[in-house]
Amino acid sequence: LTPAEEAFLREGQLAVLTALRPDGSPHSTVLWIDAEGGEILVNTARGRAKERHVLEDARVSVAVYDRADFQRWLIADGVARLVETGAWAHIDALADRYQGPGTNRLPREGPQRVILRIAPIRVETQGLRP
Amino acid sequence: LTPAEEAFLREGQLAVLTALRPDGSPHSTVLWIDAEGGEILVNTARGRAKERHVLEDARVSVAVYDRADFQRWLIADGVARLVETGAWAHIDALADRYQGPGTNRLPREGPQRVILRIAPIRVETQGLRP
Repeated sequence: LTPAEEAFLREGQLAVLTALRPDGSPHSTVLWIDAEGGEILVNTARGRAKERHVLEDARVSVAVYDRADFQRWLIADGVARLVETGAWAHIDALADRYQGPGTNRLPREGPQRVILRIAPIRVETQGLRP
Repeated sequence: LTPAEEAFLREGQLAVLTALRPDGSPHSTVLWIDAEGGEILVNTARGRAKERHVLEDARVSVAVYDRADFQRWLIADGVARLVETGAWAHIDALADRYQGPGTNRLPREGPQRVILRIAPIRVETQGLRP
């Protein structure tokens, strides 16, 4: 990911993540997105369908567009791995970004949060500064 | 699709369509969306990757969210079939909806337009009126 691509993924746009079901069919979800260290980050919870799917087949695609400007978008294919470390702090940081500072902390007694770290293989963009 | 789901898909929101590459990996694109007669409609052109992919494997997923209200979204899995009839009139109608009436007619000498008609298998929504 270029710095401009990472910046775009940190703007607070929504993303569509598509993973593969055990039968190979695509399964999409709408969710918050982040980027760090050249990887795309998605925060989810243990037991969710997307977590189970990427444990079976790590191939995913991510699509993000600017809700204020349809000519700005990023689509990436990549391979996801699961990381637990820092996942609670990460979901809090995303809540701050998407819902406003200090809002909506998830109770820690809920299911363990996990981060899907997606190493991009192909990235296609439109309208992002180089 | 319920009437409320069809209406949502005709609001002029962007969609993410995910098809499967020959190797089974997911391939997403950002595009205009439509619905009619219980099916989800996407307009594309002969020779595009998504057209080739659905000819090989018809399984797709579609994700649409309201760019003004993240709590309104629709995700559908379905099976796509290609239809040529009406595809030029359909892309003109979509251009009217997305870009304003009478704007940006595609020149007819371009590649043949086709409609992907997606019969939904599973539909999940949030925030749409019943």
